[in-house]
Amino acid sequence: MRTVWLNGEFLPEHEARVPIFDRALTFGQGVYEVTPVIDGRFCNWPHHAARLAQSKAQCRISDDTDWPPILDELIRRNGLTEGRIYLQVTGGAPGDRDFLSPTDPVPPTRFAFTQAAALVDHPKVHEGMRVILHPEGRWALRAAKTTQLLYAVLAKEAARDAGADDAWLVDQGMITEGTSANAHIIDSRGVLVSHPVEHGVLPGVTRLCAIPLAREMGLPIEERPFSVDELFAAREAFISSATTVIMPVVEVDGRKIGNGQPGSHTLELRRRYIERLRHA
Amino acid sequence: MRTVWLNGEFLPEHEARVPIFDRALTFGQGVYEVTPVIDGRFCNWPHHAARLAQSKAQCRISDDTDWPPILDELIRRNGLTEGRIYLQVTGGAPGDRDFLSPTDPVPPTRFAFTQAAALVDHPKVHEGMRVILHPEGRWALRAAKTTQLLYAVLAKEAARDAGADDAWLVDQGMITEGTSANAHIIDSRGVLVSHPVEHGVLPGVTRLCAIPLAREMGLPIEERPFSVDELFAAREAFISSATTVIMPVVEVDGRKIGNGQPGSHTLELRRRYIERLRHA
Repeated sequence: MRTVWLNGEFLPEHEARVPIFDRALTFGQGVYEVTPVIDGRFCNWPHHAARLAQSKAQCRISDDTDWPPILDELIRRNGLTEGRIYLQVTGGAPGDRDFLSPTDPVPPTRFAFTQAAALVDHPKVHEGMRVILHPEGRWALRAAKTTQLLYAVLAKEAARDAGADDAWLVDQGMITEGTSANAHIIDSRGVLVSHPVEHGVLPGVTRLCAIPLAREMGLPIEERPFSVDELFAAREAFISSATTVIMPVVEVDGRKIGNGQPGSHTLELRRRYIERLRHA
Repeated sequence: MRTVWLNGEFLPEHEARVPIFDRALTFGQGVYEVTPVIDGRFCNWPHHAARLAQSKAQCRISDDTDWPPILDELIRRNGLTEGRIYLQVTGGAPGDRDFLSPTDPVPPTRFAFTQAAALVDHPKVHEGMRVILHPEGRWALRAAKTTQLLYAVLAKEAARDAGADDAWLVDQGMITEGTSANAHIIDSRGVLVSHPVEHGVLPGVTRLCAIPLAREMGLPIEERPFSVDELFAAREAFISSATTVIMPVVEVDGRKIGNGQPGSHTLELRRRYIERLRHA
């Protein structure tokens, strides 16, 4: 049984509960981060901390929790060597429901837990992912990492219903991102094309750290949206996220990307990225 | 201290807690209803039940709770005569976090609570509400009544910051609705103009029940979006919701609507609507 952390306490997972008036439960006022854990260490913390600060500011959540000692202790108590840590901060739990947060602020609700999972030997690496295209329908503040995730849930479940692994979202003919990952192609010219993260997509930490590695590999890079047509003409496609690291996409709406096998640049980028995580 | 209801139990409000893995807390997978309570009875239940069924279907939540006896008992235990009842159903609490709901379904989380409030003698009726215009930025599935409400929270708080009572949302020059209410005008010709509820706005129960009353009053009605320009040229403006019933809007972005006083048709519609609630 896992030990989780809630508002200052380490607890058995089934004892960690929050009031029904928590603003994440009634209004979706929650922000979160997921950091990869490899060799028993959580990675990329400064980037996650910076993004968390931005998410909190955009969602009007105040909190100054010192997370690293908590995450270290969660890893230790749960004997985690590989997987991820999830942490969430909410608008807190006032004594009643009101859209407006109390003028006399309530403390945020904060919790974190570990999830053991294979990052390096992820079972999907060898076959690659199959995705469907799905209309973009999320809200405007997609650069904040919030718990407004129901659209992503529904798109992922539509993918499952279709026998696919995930969905990529399409806004006016252009790919925005995956449901829980940034989306990238190596296009017909051999250029890595990736949606810019200034607006409209999540500023992915894996994306941020992987792009310099792709540059070191000699790949030309264009940070701009790419179209569905470019996707189908691409040599390779892949996603980046804390959970999947760098993961090849081999099929979209039943059509092969490139030769239908995980791309060689994608796999090399994945190798270098994992190497970097191990030694960062 | 209130008695609330959670998953089959009547509990003191501070004891009602849900697991941190609840899908409404981590993914915003929650749907809800708010019914007005007047003279110790909750109102319009068949309409709320029908909308709840639609919201659940759109959000992939299964539940067959028989709500009326629970709501009756909550009113009785809390001695509520006027105000509202809030009820919520979530995707339930699996043992871990995963975007995909478990293939072996978990039971939904269900809770409900009362809120005492003045409906008939609402303090804002006599002065009317002042609203600001705010860009529309919510997600695509706005016809479902879900807890994806953070955008509405932020818009309401922007209104509070501006010294106003609430915000109306504007999409490409057209009003969609308020942050938690449908928006209506009686335009410069004397026509009641109200956004259709087929898509893009919540199918408000108060709106649904009030439009026939407006028709009985002899008001011509057009169900179509109205523009910001039409709003500023309107004779009257008002919102409808379970919480405010029918409530005049007298000022938008600091500009008076009509003569800056609650409109006479609005007040008459409010009177008839409350009469209907009392005797329905």
